[in-house]
Amino acid sequence: MSRTRLADDTIIALATPQGVSGLAVIRLSGKDSIDITDKVFAGKRLIDQPTHSVHFGTIGEQNKIIDEVLVTVFKEPNSFTKENSTEISCHGSPVIIRQIIKLFLKNGARLAEPGEFTKRAFMNGRFDLAQAEAVADLIHAENDNARQAALNQMRGGFSNEITHLREELIHFASLIELELDFGEEDVEFAKRDDLLLLVGKVQSYLTRLIASFDQGNVIKNGIPTVIAGKPNAGKSTLLNALLNEEKAIVSEIPGTTRDVIEDEITLGGVTFRFMDTAGLRETQDVIEALGVSRTHERMKIAALILYLFDLSNTTIEEIAIEEARLKAIGRPYIKVGNKVDKASKQLLSAINDQDFVLISASSKTNLETLKKEILSKVNIQEVKQGDVLVTNLRHYQKLTETNEALERVVTGLNSGITGDFLAMDIRQALHFLGEITGTITSDDLLENIFANFCIGK
Amino acid sequence: MSRTRLADDTIIALATPQGVSGLAVIRLSGKDSIDITDKVFAGKRLIDQPTHSVHFGTIGEQNKIIDEVLVTVFKEPNSFTKENSTEISCHGSPVIIRQIIKLFLKNGARLAEPGEFTKRAFMNGRFDLAQAEAVADLIHAENDNARQAALNQMRGGFSNEITHLREELIHFASLIELELDFGEEDVEFAKRDDLLLLVGKVQSYLTRLIASFDQGNVIKNGIPTVIAGKPNAGKSTLLNALLNEEKAIVSEIPGTTRDVIEDEITLGGVTFRFMDTAGLRETQDVIEALGVSRTHERMKIAALILYLFDLSNTTIEEIAIEEARLKAIGRPYIKVGNKVDKASKQLLSAINDQDFVLISASSKTNLETLKKEILSKVNIQEVKQGDVLVTNLRHYQKLTETNEALERVVTGLNSGITGDFLAMDIRQALHFLGEITGTITSDDLLENIFANFCIGK
Repeated sequence: MSRTRLADDTIIALATPQGVSGLAVIRLSGKDSIDITDKVFAGKRLIDQPTHSVHFGTIGEQNKIIDEVLVTVFKEPNSFTKENSTEISCHGSPVIIRQIIKLFLKNGARLAEPGEFTKRAFMNGRFDLAQAEAVADLIHAENDNARQAALNQMRGGFSNEITHLREELIHFASLIELELDFGEEDVEFAKRDDLLLLVGKVQSYLTRLIASFDQGNVIKNGIPTVIAGKPNAGKSTLLNALLNEEKAIVSEIPGTTRDVIEDEITLGGVTFRFMDTAGLRETQDVIEALGVSRTHERMKIAALILYLFDLSNTTIEEIAIEEARLKAIGRPYIKVGNKVDKASKQLLSAINDQDFVLISASSKTNLETLKKEILSKVNIQEVKQGDVLVTNLRHYQKLTETNEALERVVTGLNSGITGDFLAMDIRQALHFLGEITGTITSDDLLENIFANFCIGK
Repeated sequence: MSRTRLADDTIIALATPQGVSGLAVIRLSGKDSIDITDKVFAGKRLIDQPTHSVHFGTIGEQNKIIDEVLVTVFKEPNSFTKENSTEISCHGSPVIIRQIIKLFLKNGARLAEPGEFTKRAFMNGRFDLAQAEAVADLIHAENDNARQAALNQMRGGFSNEITHLREELIHFASLIELELDFGEEDVEFAKRDDLLLLVGKVQSYLTRLIASFDQGNVIKNGIPTVIAGKPNAGKSTLLNALLNEEKAIVSEIPGTTRDVIEDEITLGGVTFRFMDTAGLRETQDVIEALGVSRTHERMKIAALILYLFDLSNTTIEEIAIEEARLKAIGRPYIKVGNKVDKASKQLLSAINDQDFVLISASSKTNLETLKKEILSKVNIQEVKQGDVLVTNLRHYQKLTETNEALERVVTGLNSGITGDFLAMDIRQALHFLGEITGTITSDDLLENIFANFCIGK
C-alpha cells in the first residue's frame, strides 16, 4: 500500500454553495474536530454526545454569539472521512459563514483544500480511488444517465472485480518470481496454461470496460452537435426554442434551477452540447464556402448535425444540392424542414417522400417530433442501477495500458519467453491496475485528481 | 389570537443555494414528513428513530437509487417548525436535487412557498412575528452589525418587552370597558393616574426604539455615499481601488465569497452604498453644471460625499471655489486630495493646514487613512449582543403609530374625556402593537412578509 500517511489536523470548509439561502452547512473533519467545535459551541458538550446526533446551540465567543446553529456529531470511524467530524448547519448568510469559519481557524482548524474530505475518505479506506473519483462525477453529473453511472461507480462499479482479478494476477507473479529464486533449476510453480486462462479472463473483462467508454464518455460529456443551414434558415431561432423549452422544464421546481449552461440541452437523460454556436450564428455562408468555414470544421467532428432547410425559400433542386454536400461530410444528420407554415404546397408534396422533420422554429411547431428524432439518432441506452460503465478518461487510459501489458504477457507465453520477462510484463499490468484503484498512487496523481473537486467535498 | 389555522400538509424545499457543491440539504416539514421520507428512504425505519438523529441510507424507488444520503429526523415539537420534519443531506448536484424533490412530490409532499417554514414556526408559536422577520434579516445581513442586530431581534429583541407592556395596557383597557358596562353609575375601576404612568412608561420605551431606527436603517441598508469631483479627478479609480481591496478580503476564505455587489463596500461592519456611480462615472461636469446634473441630485441626498481634488491639476484658488460649492450642498463630506504623488510642493504646502486626506488612488497610497476617515464620519456604534435596535421599516411604522395613539390617550386623559373614547384610543394602540408581534395579523400582512423570504426558509 502506498497511500501516503495522513495529516491528522482538522480541516474546515463550506460544503454548500455560496449565496444567501435558508441554511448553509460548514463541515469539519479531523481527530480534534469535535473538541474544536466544543470550544466555540454553547449548548451541550459535544464530545460526550453519541455519533450521528444533532444538537441545537449557539456558535461564538464570550459575549459575541455569531448564530444559532444545529451541530451534527460524527465519531470515527462512523463518518464520511472515517475521522471525527462535525457539521454546522447555520443560517445561509455569507457574513455568518465567513465569521464562523474565521472563528474555527482561530481555534485550530485550517481551511480544507479542494476534495480534501474525499481524499481523507480514500486515505482511510472508505473506498478506492476510482470510487473517490466517482464522487466528483456524481456531483457534476449533468444528466440522469451520468448521475446513475457515477453513482454505480461510487457504490462499487468495477472496483471489486478489478481488485479481485489483480489479486489473482499477483498470485501468479509471485509464483513466477519464486521460480526465479531457484535460478538454474528447472522448476515451474506457475502453470503457464492457467496463467494464459487467467490473462484471457482479465482481458475479456477489461475489453468490455474499455468498450463501454464510448458510451460513458458521451453520457458524461454530452454529444457534440451542430445546427447548420443556409443564412436565415432559422438556426438560432431553433436553438433558442430548444434551450428555452429546456429552461422552462428546469425551473419547474423553484430553487433548483441551476445556471443553465447556454447551448446545452438534455433530452431523455442525454446531453447535447452545441459546439461553438456563437460562431455558427454569425456564419453567413455555411454551404457556399464549404471547406473553409469554421462551421464546416465543426460539422466534420460533430456526432450529430441538425441541418435546417428554409422551406419558405428554396426549391427541390437546391435541397438536393445541399443534401449532397451534407452527405459528403460523412456525419450523422437530421434534415429539418423549417418554416413549414410558409412552404408552398408544391414543395411540400415534392419532398413528401423524403425523411424531413417538418417544423416551425418560430412558432415552436413539431419540436417534440424533432426531439424524438434527435434522441433516436444517438442510440444511448438508459443507464440502469448496477450497470458498469467507464466514464473517466484516466480509467480508460489505465485500462488500455493494462490490456496492452497483458497482450505482451500473452505474446510472451506463446513464444515461451523466460520467467523474468514474463514477471516484468505482469508487474506492469499490475501497476496500471493498481493506479486505477489507487493501490498504487503518487502525490502528483492524487493532487491532480482532487484538485478537480469542489472545496467542501 | 388571530393566527390563522395551519395547513397540515407536508412541504418540501431546497434549503441551500442552487449550484454544484459538496452537499445540498432538502428540507421537509409537516405531520407526515417522516412517513413520506420513509416511503423513499432505504436504511432504517425513520419513524422509529429518536428526534435529532442522523441516518445513512439511499433515496429512490425500487431498482432506482437516486443518491446515498444522510437523513436527519426531527420530531414535533422539537423542530424549527415545531412539526415533524426531516432534512435530506444529498450530494450537491442539481440533477440529484431535482430528482429527489420530484420523487417527494410524487409521494405526497408539495413545494414550499417562500418563507413557509418560518411561517409555520411562527404559526406554531416558536416565536412572534417580529422575531420571524428577523430570520430573513439575519440571512440577508450584509455586514456584521446588521447580522448582530438581526440575531438580537430573533433571540427576543423588543418582543418580550412589547408583549409585557401590551398586557399591562390590555388590563387597563378591560377595566375601562368594565366601567362602561355600569353605564350611568359613576364608577372608576381604572385609576387614571396609574394609566397615565403606564402610558408614560410605554411611550418612553417606544421613543427609544423609534430613535434607534436611524442607526438601524443605516446598519441594515448601508450608507448612501457619493464619490464626486471634477472630470479626471480619479473617481472611478478610487472606487475600484476600494472595491478591489474589499473583494480581496472577502475572498480570503475560499468558498465563502459571495457575489460582491458592485459599488458597495463594508468597512468595520458598516456598509457604504455608492449611489448610481455608473452615472457618476459618465458625468463630465460635476461642478460646472451644478443644479442640473444627476450627480448633484445624488449629492444632496448622500449621507457622505467623498469629494476628489486632482492635486496634479488644480490651484489653491480653484480648490477654494470647489469647496465653497461643496459646502453649499450641506451634506457631510471628506476632501480627498488625489494624485498626491504628482502634486507640486508649492500646492501641498499651501493646503497643508486644510483637512485633506492625501492619497494616490492609482497606486493605492494612503487608502487606509481614507477608510478610517470615512468610518469616523458616520459614527456608527458597533452593535453588541443584546442591543435592541429597530431595523425594520414595518416595525418603525407600527411603533410610530402606537406612539401617536398613546399620545391621544394622554391628551384625552388630560382633558378628561369619557371612558369610551379613552378605551378606543387604547384599543388602537394595542392593535398597532399587536401587529408588530403578530398577535394581530391578516393573511395579507403575512403574505407580504413571508413573500420576501427565500424558498427553503
